[in-house]
Amino acid sequence: MGKITVIGIGPGSLDDMTLRAHKAIEKADTIAGYNTYIKLIEPLLAGKKIIGTGMMQEIDRCTMALAEACKGHDVAVVSSGDAGVYGMAGLVLELLLQKPAEERPQVAIIPGVSAVNAAAAILGAPLMHDFAVISLSDLLTPWDLIKKRAAFAAQGDFVIALYNPKSRKRVEHIEEIREILLKYKPANTPVGIVRGATRNNESVVISDLANFTKEEIDMFSLVIIGNSNTYSKNNLMITPRGYKL
Amino acid sequence: MGKITVIGIGPGSLDDMTLRAHKAIEKADTIAGYNTYIKLIEPLLAGKKIIGTGMMQEIDRCTMALAEACKGHDVAVVSSGDAGVYGMAGLVLELLLQKPAEERPQVAIIPGVSAVNAAAAILGAPLMHDFAVISLSDLLTPWDLIKKRAAFAAQGDFVIALYNPKSRKRVEHIEEIREILLKYKPANTPVGIVRGATRNNESVVISDLANFTKEEIDMFSLVIIGNSNTYSKNNLMITPRGYKL
Repeated sequence: MGKITVIGIGPGSLDDMTLRAHKAIEKADTIAGYNTYIKLIEPLLAGKKIIGTGMMQEIDRCTMALAEACKGHDVAVVSSGDAGVYGMAGLVLELLLQKPAEERPQVAIIPGVSAVNAAAAILGAPLMHDFAVISLSDLLTPWDLIKKRAAFAAQGDFVIALYNPKSRKRVEHIEEIREILLKYKPANTPVGIVRGATRNNESVVISDLANFTKEEIDMFSLVIIGNSNTYSKNNLMITPRGYKL
Repeated sequence: MGKITVIGIGPGSLDDMTLRAHKAIEKADTIAGYNTYIKLIEPLLAGKKIIGTGMMQEIDRCTMALAEACKGHDVAVVSSGDAGVYGMAGLVLELLLQKPAEERPQVAIIPGVSAVNAAAAILGAPLMHDFAVISLSDLLTPWDLIKKRAAFAAQGDFVIALYNPKSRKRVEHIEEIREILLKYKPANTPVGIVRGATRNNESVVISDLANFTKEEIDMFSLVIIGNSNTYSKNNLMITPRGYKL
């Protein structure tokens, strides 16, 4: 029996991957991942068998990865950011538990730098206080539940990070969320948008709740909406922790 | 003028630090940090000037670090987990912005693997869906606001991660939070507790909302409370993303 390691490769650049992730990829003989992420770590893949598939083929990909591990291979399943945040860790474990105990390969999860932490570091320090992370993708989650969560997070004055804020087919959701947040947060609340954090095409905009949806936002963007204390100064977005300076 | 780099060193083990963090520490001539974290990275510090201070001396420490950078040094301020989550990134930037523009050294933030992501990887995959992060420390935040946030996060059916869940002086807060959460979440909701993630003394317990406060919990613990879909099986805590298997 082989093993399977689910690896968070971080936001994009090889430098933002942990040493543990680097070592696990080096040791593995088989790498499974979404083609876009496979490309990000190409320099590490020489001589390895690659199971690369397109978007929305997560179940197929993880099933193939498990099958390879059962055959005796050392398989790494790579996932961008942290594999445990909207990534592949949960799916691999769920598929594993469907097998009889004696047919399960060893599994380990290696955490990575989440997209939200990477985006925050680029914006300054917008995440310093209690925060909520919400994905706007309704492929696997009812839209009404997503809207409900946004409303409660706003009422709790959380800093709010939005994953998957907008896709080509899903352009109106971000507007709906903006309207919900405006019920509880002032229009001038700072909003940071980071596209392609640490990748070649990285871009950053700091806007506000009234206007941020006019900016370019896509599936590679991460949106961070401040709490009532967040401010923007000198192109930095900062949420004070509460120190008396 | 020198520079200051605020570095998330990850949960504890040197292997869980990013390459970018390793390189920045290597390059710096001066390292500032809480003594406990300085100890975690001791193998990297030979020949460097150390500004190590005790707990609750964050402002002094960051002020000294900035002063060194202004004198021309390459200063690294280290912070456990991600420096942008209850860490030193915000404080350093706030102190920086108090200086006249021409007296500000260059600043960069390097993100790290957050304690919550590290704890989640050890527990399985409890964080796979929308989550809220709340610190129970009321040193800098009014206790009523913390309780309010816990109530809204529970009503939004977020997975909830608690930082600083309990200290020697603050033993009743976690019980109050448990009672608030029990108003909105079932008593059998899985709760994971990870102490000293990736450090020598790492320990893990999976309990439930009714009983988790009977377990050992301290300032080095991270508590993760599931959402309505989270389950525990084979010592793994999993929040399904919603894939139909």
